[in-house]
Amino acid sequence: MELSENVFFILAILVSLLSFGVAAFFYHWVKSRHSSNKRIEEIGNHIKKGSNTFLAREYGVLGRFAGVVALLILVFLPQPIWMGSPNENVLMAVSYILGTALSALAGKVGIQVATIANVKAAEAATKGIKPSFLVGFRGGSVMGMAVVGSSLLGVTLVYMITKDSSAVLGFSFGASSLALFAKAGGGIFTKTADISADLVGKVELGIPEDDPRNPAVIADNVGDNVGDVAGMGADLFDSNVASMSAALVMGMALDRTGNAMQNTKMIFCYAALGLLASAIGVLSARMGKKGDPTKALNSSTYITTAIFAALTAGATWLFDFEWRIWGATAIGLGVGLIIGIASDYFTNDNKNPVRHVAKASKSGPAFTILSGISYGFLSVLPSMIGIGVSALLAYNICAPIGAGYAMFGIAMAAMGMLSIVGMIISNDAYGPIVDNARGLAEMGNLGDEVLKITDELDSAGNTVKAVTKGFAIGAAGLTIIALLGAFMSEVNLAAIEKGLAQITGFDIMNPLVFFGLLIGAAIPAVFSAMLMLGVDRNAQRMVAEIHRQFKEIIGLKEGKEGVVPEYDKCIDIATTGALKELIPAGVMSIVITLLVGFIGGVQAIGGFLTGNIVSGLLLALFMSNSGGLWDNAKKYIEAGNDGGKGSDAHKAAVVGDTVGDPFKDTAGPSINTQVTVVSLVASIMATLFLSFHLFG
Amino acid sequence: MELSENVFFILAILVSLLSFGVAAFFYHWVKSRHSSNKRIEEIGNHIKKGSNTFLAREYGVLGRFAGVVALLILVFLPQPIWMGSPNENVLMAVSYILGTALSALAGKVGIQVATIANVKAAEAATKGIKPSFLVGFRGGSVMGMAVVGSSLLGVTLVYMITKDSSAVLGFSFGASSLALFAKAGGGIFTKTADISADLVGKVELGIPEDDPRNPAVIADNVGDNVGDVAGMGADLFDSNVASMSAALVMGMALDRTGNAMQNTKMIFCYAALGLLASAIGVLSARMGKKGDPTKALNSSTYITTAIFAALTAGATWLFDFEWRIWGATAIGLGVGLIIGIASDYFTNDNKNPVRHVAKASKSGPAFTILSGISYGFLSVLPSMIGIGVSALLAYNICAPIGAGYAMFGIAMAAMGMLSIVGMIISNDAYGPIVDNARGLAEMGNLGDEVLKITDELDSAGNTVKAVTKGFAIGAAGLTIIALLGAFMSEVNLAAIEKGLAQITGFDIMNPLVFFGLLIGAAIPAVFSAMLMLGVDRNAQRMVAEIHRQFKEIIGLKEGKEGVVPEYDKCIDIATTGALKELIPAGVMSIVITLLVGFIGGVQAIGGFLTGNIVSGLLLALFMSNSGGLWDNAKKYIEAGNDGGKGSDAHKAAVVGDTVGDPFKDTAGPSINTQVTVVSLVASIMATLFLSFHLFG
Repeated sequence: MELSENVFFILAILVSLLSFGVAAFFYHWVKSRHSSNKRIEEIGNHIKKGSNTFLAREYGVLGRFAGVVALLILVFLPQPIWMGSPNENVLMAVSYILGTALSALAGKVGIQVATIANVKAAEAATKGIKPSFLVGFRGGSVMGMAVVGSSLLGVTLVYMITKDSSAVLGFSFGASSLALFAKAGGGIFTKTADISADLVGKVELGIPEDDPRNPAVIADNVGDNVGDVAGMGADLFDSNVASMSAALVMGMALDRTGNAMQNTKMIFCYAALGLLASAIGVLSARMGKKGDPTKALNSSTYITTAIFAALTAGATWLFDFEWRIWGATAIGLGVGLIIGIASDYFTNDNKNPVRHVAKASKSGPAFTILSGISYGFLSVLPSMIGIGVSALLAYNICAPIGAGYAMFGIAMAAMGMLSIVGMIISNDAYGPIVDNARGLAEMGNLGDEVLKITDELDSAGNTVKAVTKGFAIGAAGLTIIALLGAFMSEVNLAAIEKGLAQITGFDIMNPLVFFGLLIGAAIPAVFSAMLMLGVDRNAQRMVAEIHRQFKEIIGLKEGKEGVVPEYDKCIDIATTGALKELIPAGVMSIVITLLVGFIGGVQAIGGFLTGNIVSGLLLALFMSNSGGLWDNAKKYIEAGNDGGKGSDAHKAAVVGDTVGDPFKDTAGPSINTQVTVVSLVASIMATLFLSFHLFG
Repeated sequence: MELSENVFFILAILVSLLSFGVAAFFYHWVKSRHSSNKRIEEIGNHIKKGSNTFLAREYGVLGRFAGVVALLILVFLPQPIWMGSPNENVLMAVSYILGTALSALAGKVGIQVATIANVKAAEAATKGIKPSFLVGFRGGSVMGMAVVGSSLLGVTLVYMITKDSSAVLGFSFGASSLALFAKAGGGIFTKTADISADLVGKVELGIPEDDPRNPAVIADNVGDNVGDVAGMGADLFDSNVASMSAALVMGMALDRTGNAMQNTKMIFCYAALGLLASAIGVLSARMGKKGDPTKALNSSTYITTAIFAALTAGATWLFDFEWRIWGATAIGLGVGLIIGIASDYFTNDNKNPVRHVAKASKSGPAFTILSGISYGFLSVLPSMIGIGVSALLAYNICAPIGAGYAMFGIAMAAMGMLSIVGMIISNDAYGPIVDNARGLAEMGNLGDEVLKITDELDSAGNTVKAVTKGFAIGAAGLTIIALLGAFMSEVNLAAIEKGLAQITGFDIMNPLVFFGLLIGAAIPAVFSAMLMLGVDRNAQRMVAEIHRQFKEIIGLKEGKEGVVPEYDKCIDIATTGALKELIPAGVMSIVITLLVGFIGGVQAIGGFLTGNIVSGLLLALFMSNSGGLWDNAKKYIEAGNDGGKGSDAHKAAVVGDTVGDPFKDTAGPSINTQVTVVSLVASIMATLFLSFHLFG
């Protein structure tokens, strides 16, 4: 059955609206949960206020940045306004602004619901683990549904109206550039607060986590929201948009050969079905009789995967889509699962690596670090093989369809991996909500039983995070390989216009490519270093402030009735520091991309993107996994193993966890976004790089 | 003036013999220095015995390994013996054995002189810094001259007799495979002993470095010899041979076009002049009036560089060599200096990074680690840009000469960087000799004045190491880019023989290339992880043994007269452990290369080598520089800054140093060798990969 393209636009829009409906339903459901504890509400409000203040200030900075970029786009892209057609420039600039706005909105919605759900989840925990789980999960799902719905709606509208690849890439670039800074800013904020609170609280004073005497404790909770909720939301909004955009740019080029737009139809159809599958997945999530929250989260992920595979197979049959492309999508989905399981092996405290690191900690922190770094390095192998094999298979499956389809297959594999992104975000946002709930339960004195429940919920969040993070990194890997294809497609489009020879690829033996390769490979390392040094600087400032408060505020250390620390000062330090540090790293990577492009032209950029992808994947996997591993090794010891809390092994493990924090929550996950942004910059600048360059 | 090729062979052989003469002269000079202190002689003998025992056992293991590989080569390479001509197989196997033997000999000679020079340098220090410096430096120069002389002689003989690229590559592979395991084994030994001695001695018990009560102290000194002297000697023997081989393989192919063998003549001429320049440099090294050993070491490096540039310019003019190729060589030399200076910036305690890390240590070990890793990441950028730019320039300068010359230019740039390798080795081997001398002075109670002198000599060794390491890594980077060219050259040779189409390069958009790229990039990480886990496991065993001795040997801790620890037990643990751990990591990288080759053929291998080079450079630079930085941050604090010895900052810095030790002395420097080995395996297997593969 062949239907017009419009039918699929309508399908995509309807499913988006449906997901908004689900989000609204969950939002009201969460909001209407019972809450009565004044103390918790009060602290909850503090957290909400802190989060919103940071977000407002961050968006203020980013708004100005986006304004400048939009202006540059208007004048120079896709071609200088005096050379091309001004219309295109306006479309691209507007798409860019729309991308940044929707990405920002995704973060805002997440914060909005997360700062309500944390209070409700804490209260619900007094009634048992099941209701509390449901509040946390549905709170996370609001974000999941809203983010994926708006990304699908945005891409659909931009494509429907413009039918122009530059506009689609502009939209995606808007989403990415906002995500880059939001992720970096949130990541610096959250780890500044987390590290400082832990170091002074746990290590120096020996007071428990989330103790209200600790001046950084509210900042820590705010950090969970602005980093893990808002930052992560913007990040996955971006990944989802980027994977659709890469597929669209190539699909459009292929559709020009006149196959009734089957490729673009397929993209919108699959994306809509992925969101539908996720919606069904989140609606059906419940804790089983045995009451294991990890199982509940993982099983809804698997259900979503199965539903997506079935729905797309049905659609492929019904609409006469190409089965080979469905195969590529399915490969992406399958390999995503494998990568997730591999990440889980290296970070799960039932497995060898975590236990080995915990044991090594008995010989001191140097061994915690050495063994953790070693396992982090080892952990990259299965994922790199997984991504490499899935790219190879997707390519080979789709190559027989015709010229250009092989690369398109890789883009569809990336879409397959990201198809269940709605579910991934729901799981991911669940984490900080129950983490906050735990903090509120502690500060609100809800008692040990409730703390035990929130602890269990929190630990489930950490465990599933490994699987979903594996998915996210794998998908980003494939997406950026696909973006390399999109870049080539854009270069050739420009080459045709200018009457230049088309390029067929990027030869490693070409020294311009190799030159780009080496520099591109260095960027993720430099980028991570800049973010981590930012956290390092900021945390030292905050530690000094906490020391000051404990020294100057009489009765604080002893926990005297009525003595409260100056929470706001810590929030302010984290905010100011994060705002100062979030811009340079991102700008550095964009500027170096421009330099390489204007020095070595498109060949150097081909190498540059490749080096960036390869080393970006390597470092992102290494940092995420070793960070997760250290976190869980510490928890494993805290559970009474290898000496338990307060032992030397525990102190060493805390050092590991502190190093791991910015690894896994600041630098590691930002690298994906950095690589995506750079790839998109390359694509939208393709015409300029082709026209102006020093060598080659 | 055009001379026959034989003239240049004779030149190379004569200069090799001259360098042996210089080595012999220095050896006897060092040996005839005065020594009288019985206690020092006794300990010196202990160190010598331990080093020789380890070397004998290590070479036993490696001999068997090399035997097996030689047999495999005999049967299968360059082509299965039943397919090609058996003669070639015999030549290649014999060349391989010669390569391993000379590489092993280089290590043996180094140990021989280093274990004499340490005693003499300690005694000479009682007479002042100048004589002690000269003993240390000339001891190191014996190794420098012997290693470079034998590598030049070996390559010259193999080429002269066989005129066959397979035999040259076989010789190089022999040198590399021995270096790989010698470096890994020595690196694991030395860091096991170093870490354990420091942790228990300095951190737990608070006894000084090199205190004779510490059971691991002799093992630590043995480690300096087997790791830093023998391992490093084998490593640089290998780099030098590999860079000449890569140039030769390409030069021979170009010479077939009939230009009177100008390329191969030039290679031998430049290599001989490089050794000559180094010989002049080491002969002229003296400490100036101001008595600054760092200046003495650096200035002889600069002198050597200048002499080499002048001599090769003269030769180019005299023998009508191509000036453009001379230009490429000069670029290599110049960029080597720049990379060295950049490494120096990140590891010198007069510069910002070291001071920042020292200051961060005041907030605890987590900050030492985080800031050190961050600066390590930052430090890769200048070197990667340097290598990229020099490759680009060398390529563009030589491209106009004719097809194929561009890549040859890169090989010559690598040779340029390595031309002063004789000087580099002399500087490098100086380090462990004066380090040992310091230990002997402490154990022999030579007094504080002597300790101050040996400390100053030791610290100079650490500082120049940064510059020479930068050179070595940069040269390795260019060499392996050139080896990629050699690989393509070998593939095309085989393709011509088999009547297959020649390849023109490796296109990144080919999924086989990308597949190889991703897996190749993971290998250095996995390889480093395996070595570091080896150190980690081994050090834990040794720490347990030291604890046992302090517990069971009565009077040891208190330093009771006549009570000696059981030094041999610690040496034995380090030896046994190192022998067990040194094989798997190397074999893993070779096996995965074979797998990728037989799965994806030569295209996948092209990607694999590229990924390996890029991530290998990234990790080697990161690990070497952050390791050096931590070491110097610790020394900076020990010099009385940021709280000084015994402060919390110092304890944190010791953790950093302990993490950095296997970074900079085990994993980091082994990565170069790993990448070289893999590149050579690819080249010698080229014909087989072309004939048998699953995909493509």
